[in-house]
Amino acid sequence: MDQYVAGLIDAACAAAAPLAVASSARKDAALRAAAQGLHDRRQDVLAANAEDLRAAEAAGLAKAMMDRLRLTEGRIAEMAEGLRQVAALADPVGEIMGGWRRPNGLRIEKVRVPIGVILMIYEARPNVTADAAALCLKSGNAVILRGGKEALRSNAAIAAVLADALRGAGLPPEAVQLVNTADRAALDLLLKAEGRIDLVIPRGGEGLIRAVVEKSRIPVIKHYRGVCHTFVDASADLDMAERVAFNAKCQRPAVCNAMETLLVHRDVAAAFLPRMAARLSAAGCELRGDERARALVPAMKPAAEQDWHAEYNDLILSIRVVDSLDAAMDHIARYGSRHSDAILTRDLANARAFAAQVDSAAVFINTSTRFNDGGQFGMGAEIGISTDKLHARGPMALPELTSYKYVVYGDGQIRE
Amino acid sequence: MDQYVAGLIDAACAAAAPLAVASSARKDAALRAAAQGLHDRRQDVLAANAEDLRAAEAAGLAKAMMDRLRLTEGRIAEMAEGLRQVAALADPVGEIMGGWRRPNGLRIEKVRVPIGVILMIYEARPNVTADAAALCLKSGNAVILRGGKEALRSNAAIAAVLADALRGAGLPPEAVQLVNTADRAALDLLLKAEGRIDLVIPRGGEGLIRAVVEKSRIPVIKHYRGVCHTFVDASADLDMAERVAFNAKCQRPAVCNAMETLLVHRDVAAAFLPRMAARLSAAGCELRGDERARALVPAMKPAAEQDWHAEYNDLILSIRVVDSLDAAMDHIARYGSRHSDAILTRDLANARAFAAQVDSAAVFINTSTRFNDGGQFGMGAEIGISTDKLHARGPMALPELTSYKYVVYGDGQIRE
Repeated sequence: MDQYVAGLIDAACAAAAPLAVASSARKDAALRAAAQGLHDRRQDVLAANAEDLRAAEAAGLAKAMMDRLRLTEGRIAEMAEGLRQVAALADPVGEIMGGWRRPNGLRIEKVRVPIGVILMIYEARPNVTADAAALCLKSGNAVILRGGKEALRSNAAIAAVLADALRGAGLPPEAVQLVNTADRAALDLLLKAEGRIDLVIPRGGEGLIRAVVEKSRIPVIKHYRGVCHTFVDASADLDMAERVAFNAKCQRPAVCNAMETLLVHRDVAAAFLPRMAARLSAAGCELRGDERARALVPAMKPAAEQDWHAEYNDLILSIRVVDSLDAAMDHIARYGSRHSDAILTRDLANARAFAAQVDSAAVFINTSTRFNDGGQFGMGAEIGISTDKLHARGPMALPELTSYKYVVYGDGQIRE
Repeated sequence: MDQYVAGLIDAACAAAAPLAVASSARKDAALRAAAQGLHDRRQDVLAANAEDLRAAEAAGLAKAMMDRLRLTEGRIAEMAEGLRQVAALADPVGEIMGGWRRPNGLRIEKVRVPIGVILMIYEARPNVTADAAALCLKSGNAVILRGGKEALRSNAAIAAVLADALRGAGLPPEAVQLVNTADRAALDLLLKAEGRIDLVIPRGGEGLIRAVVEKSRIPVIKHYRGVCHTFVDASADLDMAERVAFNAKCQRPAVCNAMETLLVHRDVAAAFLPRMAARLSAAGCELRGDERARALVPAMKPAAEQDWHAEYNDLILSIRVVDSLDAAMDHIARYGSRHSDAILTRDLANARAFAAQVDSAAVFINTSTRFNDGGQFGMGAEIGISTDKLHARGPMALPELTSYKYVVYGDGQIRE
């Protein structure tokens, strides 16, 4: 195992150097060839996936997990389309982010460069193999992919297509490597490779991410939880508030930027909550309210302390009536996860205070938390949403997968 | 101890929120008041420092350390001037780093915000107390300062001035707190405060930094070593090369951006090395060469393998003759610390290759590695030089002490 992991790391480091200076044309050619390869070899990928599915069924994997694991021709076509989309994005590497001249004549340039070697850790969905590899490749980073054990065969089939595409484009196939075992010992060894692997990005449940943070000596960019709030201020347009809050909760409740707690200003609670509750209940959403909310909508279940902390990822919503904007912001500071929080208001000062004081990756004024997403932000693609504050915050797209260096041009200047 | 550290962290978190939205005027007033306070209370600071010096002498502290610990009226005046300079810098907080409109009418702004709570760990120099506090304050971050045990009394006297200045400006004095013990147990507790403390910046010897990285669950931005190279290419202007290399080694050999290894292309070794060696030797610099260098300058000592890894921080230089630009870059990749590396060349292609392929925080073309410095780069002040690739690389000034958030303005948009 030690030897296997050391080999992976050596190969990734060796691949990172040529990849860092590879032309956009070459990287894009590899991405487009991989898209074509996924199409051409879709039967191989589906056969590998069928084996994964059989093994998962025998092991009694939950239905939701089975669904995430399952590939179809349509899903493979989407994966291929994703590769083509990344090929079409601008190459972040080589961008001159800034430059200036010093009084002594030195010219300083700040240039965007790849990070180096990235370790990507993820769970069941095999499409992450292609998506993550594409973003790392485009941003000039070598990547080591460590997927879930359920998807090992599917991931291997996809990774084989990627390796062939890299080779065909004249790039080192080791730029994208899949860890061929789900043995935790391999992961532990990888997480100790400080100085060789530059960044770890875990995607998955909170347990997985906490375990990675605990063990890693390498910087980790992560996203623990999405406990997202929508606050309906006293001045809110209540029709808009109903539409936006319903969207934030119900449009796709299983994802991290869905609303988990609705906060309502006491002055509009009587006018707003009954109609909002009726609409949510009609959509099958379970409501858990504090005392004041339940006084207005008696059918609501009572919310317990843990409800304010909960990331349901489901059609469940906790509801609290608050006395003021400050009380809403205090609630968010105490229970939120710094992910996505929204205010509905017509009051300029309140909008400005909420935007300034709520310490979240993205703050939304009069719109849905569901928009916290690289695609919705117009970034083209994302590798995840960071709730960290270092390096990358919010949607992580291509520029967030880069570092920079300074290049200083002189003509013999010395320091006095 | 647990209670003391928990109190420090709670107070820092409580101070961070108002500080994050404090006006530039208020922060600058605090900085200028602190500068005035250092001047007014310089006798208190000197008295505290005299006690530290007496204790250090009794404990047998090395002379170089004693010198770093010693404050004078002049050094206090410099510290005060540093505070005034930071007050005069532009406030990074609130900068709109970018903004765009989406097809659905959403307006997205990327806004610079403070990181939150920073833990600064440093060794003997008491001036770091004022310098680091100033940069953290200006960038809207609360800071916990953990200095060396030798300087506890000096640091406490300086921190008291800072706290009074904060209070006087209407800012929470807990925005700058000094850990009042050098007990490692306190540091260990601080390093476990993941989620409360947002960033750790250690400054000091490699041992200290490695210990911090080992223990910290919080992101660390660090600078391990400065093993800096200067490569004299075959096409170099040898007069310029001599001047620049001499500056890189001798202008201030004890610092991290001083050259430690000189690489010389074989085609110019005979013309260059004897004159370079004579000048370095005349300045008292010890030379350690490989065989080919010693063939040209027999007085040189032989370099051993560990010399290529060494950060001497002293008037010692290792010298190697290489066959090509590629051999020079291979040497730098193998032995360098990704800090500062320079090439002397008249060849455009070689300059471009060196700039693109040498993976260092700063790469210098025809100038001295000694310029890798926030002040020299025109950044006004720096809290350190990062050899990491995440978040901040190279000189870390005010913008590098910030994060960002997205603020999204809508008028009822929902996600379909």
